[in-house]
Amino acid sequence: MADLKSTFLKVYSVLKSELLEDPAFEWSDDSRQWVERMLDYNVPGGKLNRGLSVIDSYKLLKEGKELTEDEIFLGSALGWCIEWLQAYFLVLDDIMDNSHTRRGQPCWFRLPKVGLIAVNDGILLRNHIPRILRKHFSNKPYYVDLLDLFNEVEFQTASGQMIDLITTIEGEKDLSKYTLSVHRRIVQYKTAYYSFYLSVACALLMSGENLDKHINVKNILVEMGVYFQVQDDYLDCFGDPETIGKIGTDIEDFKCSWLVVKALELSNEEQKKVLYENYGKTDPANVTKVKALYNELQLQGVFAEFESKSYEKLTAAIEAHPSKAVQAVLKSFLGKIYKRQK
Amino acid sequence: MADLKSTFLKVYSVLKSELLEDPAFEWSDDSRQWVERMLDYNVPGGKLNRGLSVIDSYKLLKEGKELTEDEIFLGSALGWCIEWLQAYFLVLDDIMDNSHTRRGQPCWFRLPKVGLIAVNDGILLRNHIPRILRKHFSNKPYYVDLLDLFNEVEFQTASGQMIDLITTIEGEKDLSKYTLSVHRRIVQYKTAYYSFYLSVACALLMSGENLDKHINVKNILVEMGVYFQVQDDYLDCFGDPETIGKIGTDIEDFKCSWLVVKALELSNEEQKKVLYENYGKTDPANVTKVKALYNELQLQGVFAEFESKSYEKLTAAIEAHPSKAVQAVLKSFLGKIYKRQK
Repeated sequence: MADLKSTFLKVYSVLKSELLEDPAFEWSDDSRQWVERMLDYNVPGGKLNRGLSVIDSYKLLKEGKELTEDEIFLGSALGWCIEWLQAYFLVLDDIMDNSHTRRGQPCWFRLPKVGLIAVNDGILLRNHIPRILRKHFSNKPYYVDLLDLFNEVEFQTASGQMIDLITTIEGEKDLSKYTLSVHRRIVQYKTAYYSFYLSVACALLMSGENLDKHINVKNILVEMGVYFQVQDDYLDCFGDPETIGKIGTDIEDFKCSWLVVKALELSNEEQKKVLYENYGKTDPANVTKVKALYNELQLQGVFAEFESKSYEKLTAAIEAHPSKAVQAVLKSFLGKIYKRQK
Repeated sequence: MADLKSTFLKVYSVLKSELLEDPAFEWSDDSRQWVERMLDYNVPGGKLNRGLSVIDSYKLLKEGKELTEDEIFLGSALGWCIEWLQAYFLVLDDIMDNSHTRRGQPCWFRLPKVGLIAVNDGILLRNHIPRILRKHFSNKPYYVDLLDLFNEVEFQTASGQMIDLITTIEGEKDLSKYTLSVHRRIVQYKTAYYSFYLSVACALLMSGENLDKHINVKNILVEMGVYFQVQDDYLDCFGDPETIGKIGTDIEDFKCSWLVVKALELSNEEQKKVLYENYGKTDPANVTKVKALYNELQLQGVFAEFESKSYEKLTAAIEAHPSKAVQAVLKSFLGKIYKRQK
């Protein structure tokens, strides 16, 4: 495992070097230094789960056959494309959300000399993906499918981000907009496609599969992505800050969290009033009242039930899949997130 | 001509409707309204020269043969992809430059309720391009070449924007960075590829040509793009504000303009001091001193010479091209910009 990660990181260095010598641009020392610093700051510092799971999934699809060096490189390169995509979204999301920190360091746009140049840096990150794909996959029969895949998933993510942004426009804090179906739509588009479906789709393409024949796999992974985000929403309020590594602020931030959506659904008129009066305020007294209501409504139990129901449904859907190898891929994903505490 | 434009605008309506029904996303009324308003505000309001020239060029490549309705639609769709690309750059550039107006109306991000959501809107605009290409070109033999072309040109434009931004970082106003080669590099990458090369490349692909065999056409169009931007820089200071429709502020804005680069090149030590002391300041007294120096250095004459030399070189290069049809395309571009006053 540590070995896989170190191989993966070596591929990052190779891809970075190639990008810094891309013949489609006439580099100067200044511009090369800028891009290198920007990449090192934004691309490799996360948990790399999305990227690493391309190789993991590809291995399972090959049913234990040893991977060649070339396959490891290509799988890692696709994994890095997903990490690049993630970096692009995060750099721009942090600007839109006016965030302060990311992965334990100041957001890129907060650095002196960067500022709103970060918008263009986000665009550069996005543009690196087709550069990587062209260099390493343009001779593959699935090259055009890779381009289509990344384009479609990026479109879906940006569309999910749009619903999130227009549902939560500053100065129009309106809880009545928060419903289970809105929550699901945001989560599905903004998170599930790129965090769950994309890596498996990359592995399937590398294995010579036609994605049109795997709509079922897509649906299962999107469902898993929704389940994952509900966990995230739950842990933000009920998780151990020590374990999850941050103090949740979804209540203060007026987030369209699964918890508030469920609370609205389960509340009587009086309880709804408590939510309307206290949700989205920074004063700890308001936050405490919201949390007390969550407890009164026994949201921990509601979540536990959601979790076990999701697990059952997902397991049933996975076991109905005709291919054992694909089942193994999907089970591996589910195993990693079921009952996670962080 | 008015007819061509009205056909072109009809295609916009078709493309917009298709995007607002894109099956890759589950639309709500709110999100559909948001995207429609955003498109109408940002996409069709420019001069549409870039977009229209795809059809113009394609016609010339067909050497007068009547275009079919299908060809007109497809050529227009590619033209609109360029206009979408332009809209995407402008929406994000205006945020980075903190601009106020664009095409005679407030910048999109300045509108109430929009603000930094405009960053994501820029991304959506960008994402519409592969959606349009996939819907209308995925069955064409040149589909993958179109994807590669738009990816490469976008990468070059973003790289040009990067050099521009890092050369002009706020608070580090340093004229010594402004040289002819830096100016050329910014202009070539930031403007020339997408404003000049891209539309002809689209027309060539539609005609079944291999772009690798047209490096020469690319070089000529890039050269024309540089010439066009030098004109722009010149008109910003010496053009008639009535005719060009705005009052230039390149001097105040510390822009890396061809004029200041030429002035630095031609100045003695004393004159350089005048530039260093007065360039990039908003006080009209400073601006007047810079303009007086431009006159002292006879930059109008230097420009006139540059203009005629460029025209000669471009004409010679065009006439050396083996295909009369390609010559006609290139001459049509050159004819439109030579000695332009706006």
